Amino acid sequence: MVRKTVLPNGLRIVSEPLRYLKSVSLGIWVDIGSRDETAVECGTCHFIEHMLFKGTRRRSALDIALELDAIGGLSNAFTAKENTCFYARVLDKHFVRLADILADIVLNSTIAPEEVERERQVILQEICMVEDTPDEYIHDLFTALSWKDHPMGMPIQGTEQSVDGIDRAALTDFIRRRYVPERTVVAAAGNIEHEEVVAVFKPLFEDFPPGGDAPARSIPELTPGVIVHEKDLEQVHICLGASAPSQRDPQRFASAVFNTILGGNMSSRLFQEIREKRGLAYAVYSFLSSYADAALLGVYMATDAQQVNPALEIIHREIGKIRRGEVSENDLTNAKENLVGGLYLGAEGAEGRMMRLAKNEFLFGRYVPYDELAESIERVRLDEVVEVSRSVFENGRLALATLGPLKQGELAVDILHF
Amino acid sequence: MVRKTVLPNGLRIVSEPLRYLKSVSLGIWVDIGSRDETAVECGTCHFIEHMLFKGTRRRSALDIALELDAIGGLSNAFTAKENTCFYARVLDKHFVRLADILADIVLNSTIAPEEVERERQVILQEICMVEDTPDEYIHDLFTALSWKDHPMGMPIQGTEQSVDGIDRAALTDFIRRRYVPERTVVAAAGNIEHEEVVAVFKPLFEDFPPGGDAPARSIPELTPGVIVHEKDLEQVHICLGASAPSQRDPQRFASAVFNTILGGNMSSRLFQEIREKRGLAYAVYSFLSSYADAALLGVYMATDAQQVNPALEIIHREIGKIRRGEVSENDLTNAKENLVGGLYLGAEGAEGRMMRLAKNEFLFGRYVPYDELAESIERVRLDEVVEVSRSVFENGRLALATLGPLKQGELAVDILHF
Repeated sequence: MVRKTVLPNGLRIVSEPLRYLKSVSLGIWVDIGSRDETAVECGTCHFIEHMLFKGTRRRSALDIALELDAIGGLSNAFTAKENTCFYARVLDKHFVRLADILADIVLNSTIAPEEVERERQVILQEICMVEDTPDEYIHDLFTALSWKDHPMGMPIQGTEQSVDGIDRAALTDFIRRRYVPERTVVAAAGNIEHEEVVAVFKPLFEDFPPGGDAPARSIPELTPGVIVHEKDLEQVHICLGASAPSQRDPQRFASAVFNTILGGNMSSRLFQEIREKRGLAYAVYSFLSSYADAALLGVYMATDAQQVNPALEIIHREIGKIRRGEVSENDLTNAKENLVGGLYLGAEGAEGRMMRLAKNEFLFGRYVPYDELAESIERVRLDEVVEVSRSVFENGRLALATLGPLKQGELAVDILHF
Repeated sequence: MVRKTVLPNGLRIVSEPLRYLKSVSLGIWVDIGSRDETAVECGTCHFIEHMLFKGTRRRSALDIALELDAIGGLSNAFTAKENTCFYARVLDKHFVRLADILADIVLNSTIAPEEVERERQVILQEICMVEDTPDEYIHDLFTALSWKDHPMGMPIQGTEQSVDGIDRAALTDFIRRRYVPERTVVAAAGNIEHEEVVAVFKPLFEDFPPGGDAPARSIPELTPGVIVHEKDLEQVHICLGASAPSQRDPQRFASAVFNTILGGNMSSRLFQEIREKRGLAYAVYSFLSSYADAALLGVYMATDAQQVNPALEIIHREIGKIRRGEVSENDLTNAKENLVGGLYLGAEGAEGRMMRLAKNEFLFGRYVPYDELAESIERVRLDEVVEVSRSVFENGRLALATLGPLKQGELAVDILHF
């Protein structure tokens, strides 16, 4: 059902008809993200994402907002480490209008100097907001520590200093070099046929000139270590983790199963041992931050300062148990059921399907059907889960960040060694 | 398509078949919430919500977690001011199993004393987490100020003090008195027929004994005033607002349109004036917190301490403009398009439909079709929007709360008077 068309300039159009819906989810994606920035450019992609809503040659910022609000109610954009996406879900009758707006902001934004100055202030406020939200900020601190001095470790929104240094020329130059048709994917899922998507987008994008240079991406390596960020908060927020199989690594399915068993759901080891059996935390979970050539598997928890050490001891013990093979066929089956069930439940909406279309195109250059993914998960063996747990949590190869009322030296658990 | 069955004990079953889906969203709702608690009981409903996952006569806490994870991946519960809901979305083949688990936890939870003590610690951590999240905590502060000394103003999760005082007897007594079939609604939406929902739930719930007393709910009144909560944060988080038409008030449609025009979307007055034209904030919006007999219409914003007064002046001016009738037919049309579009876009998923089934049953005792709601929005006239803006933002009848690095006395804008 999924079809793909490549325009002469290299721009790809992928779509999936979902005829039972009345809506279409449409995204214009560029596979350029914060990892393609130098330290000085840190925050440029995110700045560009903001600026594309601030006016084109045909539309003022207010026009864009009015038109999107009138047809959508659900339009948005995001910048990630590896790509940037402008998207919306609209009733099918509004598809052509939406396509015109999104293509216009991607191709014809003026990046007016006075708008750059104003938007800089908005972004600086956004950076402050992240700092005020500890369960978000701790993830930035953890990633910065893990992938130290590497673009993958830098915050997507930039820093106060880097955002201060980005001017109009830097933004337009970055767009000219990086926003090219070869790196652009139009993805649509919903009540629409591929022929219509192509018919609408071909005239919009056929004059988009190819060229620009492909950014060279280097693979980040984990910097082991501990950072204690003292702050006056009610709780200590903690992230700890290590390198895991990337999104293109054959071990990624075993890694997903391991993550589920460790702390991915209510029946997981960490949820049961930390929250259910001991009441040490309200929020505790493990997570996978996966990219094309790198990934982190981590644990997040928030708890009282005096409960940090007992909780870390349990996390350390539970990871150790899985590493030693204390995991059953039953655990494996439960984790797979949970993963596969979640996969198919997530397949019903237009937005999730649209996102998968683009991500599969960037990662694999092809569509990966849900059934294929489910089969890959089903095939994972117990010994592969144990093996991946050992290779992820290697002796000494961990990073740990804390944020809250905990002082350097108060950490009494050697979480880094097994 | 929506059908309803009332069992002899008063329990209501409402369902809506969505045959194009492969999943079913199922919720067991009780129309008892934090507003039905006394000051001493504050947090009881939320405590009960937690305890219902901690073991029944047939299932341990781990059994419940394992079974829900195996079939769902997406199961959850929440406590609101007026109701409590236990729900999950599962593939249709798992419907019977899900129904059995959810009915079991609602009817047969043991509320074991040692589990009460453990879960108390989890909830105390949850309370700390809310306090550490300023864009969430400011809403609690604002509501507590607006509806001072009234159950509607108390935090749903309780306070440290109140949660400390709730024991097993208080929980089981509350359940016995309040969790009765007359106040329970089973709602299902997705790939399922009404006959099957009834056939599954009738045996599960037919022995649920009717009785218990209906809680007397008093209507909260707004306490005007200002509270400045000083805290070491990057930004000052602000909520201000006033009484608005309730969910049963005929003026609620005009109020929704007013909210949209004021700060409900990207083209709204506040987003344009505060963020787009001046870069004073990243997050600024207006919101409606609506209940059966009361509502608050408020504005949220986060910004630097030194920008608080200029921003408040603009908020004050923009509200004043609408009150003076400076709003056009164009504004009205745009707001309606946005509201109606969002309504139909939200209608595609099973979960949103399931929630509407239960809420309509509690509020109106009947299903309100999407088309009827859309027509009510379409009928709103410009003079009604102006009228509602005047009655909401009455001279002196406002509440304002701030959280962040702003001192008492630094507020230089009389936001309370027009």
